[in-house]
Amino acid sequence: MTGVTEDRLLGGRVLLRQPREGLRAGHDAVLLAAAVPAASGDQVLELGCGSGAAFLCLAARVPGIVVTAVEREPELVALARENAALNGLADRVTVIEGDIADPRLRRVLPRVAHGFANPPFWPSGSPPPVALRRAATHAEAPLGAWADCLAAAVQHRGSATLILPAARLSDGLRAMGDAGFGSPALMPLWPRAGMPAKRVILAARRGGKGPDRVLAGLALHDGTAHGPATAAILRDGAALELG
Amino acid sequence: MTGVTEDRLLGGRVLLRQPREGLRAGHDAVLLAAAVPAASGDQVLELGCGSGAAFLCLAARVPGIVVTAVEREPELVALARENAALNGLADRVTVIEGDIADPRLRRVLPRVAHGFANPPFWPSGSPPPVALRRAATHAEAPLGAWADCLAAAVQHRGSATLILPAARLSDGLRAMGDAGFGSPALMPLWPRAGMPAKRVILAARRGGKGPDRVLAGLALHDGTAHGPATAAILRDGAALELG
Repeated sequence: MTGVTEDRLLGGRVLLRQPREGLRAGHDAVLLAAAVPAASGDQVLELGCGSGAAFLCLAARVPGIVVTAVEREPELVALARENAALNGLADRVTVIEGDIADPRLRRVLPRVAHGFANPPFWPSGSPPPVALRRAATHAEAPLGAWADCLAAAVQHRGSATLILPAARLSDGLRAMGDAGFGSPALMPLWPRAGMPAKRVILAARRGGKGPDRVLAGLALHDGTAHGPATAAILRDGAALELG
Repeated sequence: MTGVTEDRLLGGRVLLRQPREGLRAGHDAVLLAAAVPAASGDQVLELGCGSGAAFLCLAARVPGIVVTAVEREPELVALARENAALNGLADRVTVIEGDIADPRLRRVLPRVAHGFANPPFWPSGSPPPVALRRAATHAEAPLGAWADCLAAAVQHRGSATLILPAARLSDGLRAMGDAGFGSPALMPLWPRAGMPAKRVILAARRGGKGPDRVLAGLALHDGTAHGPATAAILRDGAALELG
């Protein structure tokens, strides 16, 4: 693949090779990984892993997890495998080439304690740039397909965690609920205090029966810099506790 | 009716006679009324108006609106009518005795620009006290019935506004969406900054096609007192802008 960049995440602890163009990993993947309530030894599943940014960050924060990741684009599958090896995780990460909208995929997924995803999206009404169009077709899979695929793998009382544009809040909650994930927690990610959220993290439990929770959320910026809580997550690999 | 109290809302501008026991009106009704984007001359509809706190607050903030309100309990219907008269609104308020879960009600509702409701609720798992049990049976009507009833009256592009426990966020968004209200806005009401929300305001537009919005919300308390934005709403009758 031409045009691969080499980036560092979590203050340098994670090395990420990824395509120069396309849906590049950024803070969303790091924040998603920070919100997954995994413990050492847990089996986890990431859907639509791209080059692997989120599972690499999770494995850096929680040593000893066992990762299965799914990605549809062959070049990204290869990069995700390469990145797992570069970060010393070759024996702990399995990357499956597959389409989350394909029901056959669901039969080969392992049973996991935690599933997570950062479904790709494009703002409604704006077609993606030509160079990114292939990756963008992922967005054709509605959130229900992502949630159903997670439900096929996550064990009873296990967790599912999504990071989504705030614009997809209703769709996300509905998809999680219809797939059998309950007790949803909404964590808004505020660009800064007092502004509407651009992203939200939704977490839920398989078979959960508790009330919905609307958490205080995280203000990403404080003035022109990241706020201290955000810096701890992005740079120091802190967890984002959903309580 | 024995046991009626006489209370003042909006810094004394609204006089409210209401039962001493049962689901008494409080800040929720005032915050709900503050969030309804009505203009003078608009027809509005309140479902489950109780003694009338919310529509009285709305009429105090937006003079010249025409109110239809629905309430199931005959004693509360009588109080709501009495309160309309006490506040000089007898010729602008019609209170209908009816059950929002009864499809026949929907045929007698007027066409309105804005609908709103504060559906009664009990925390799941805790039965209501005996004295309140009759009013509590209202909670048997799922939120879908409230949203459908609003949809029967609200005109295209008109608004629907609900105040709900945060625990009912998913149900509320689903009910609004299924009833044909789109472009939902979520306004969390934080007990104080940094705490999970106990209440949320959900607003949506009939036929709206815009993205969901997660607004910064309102912190109700600042230390031990109401914050300035909250005090302006509760005491001075300010609007709660949802943008």
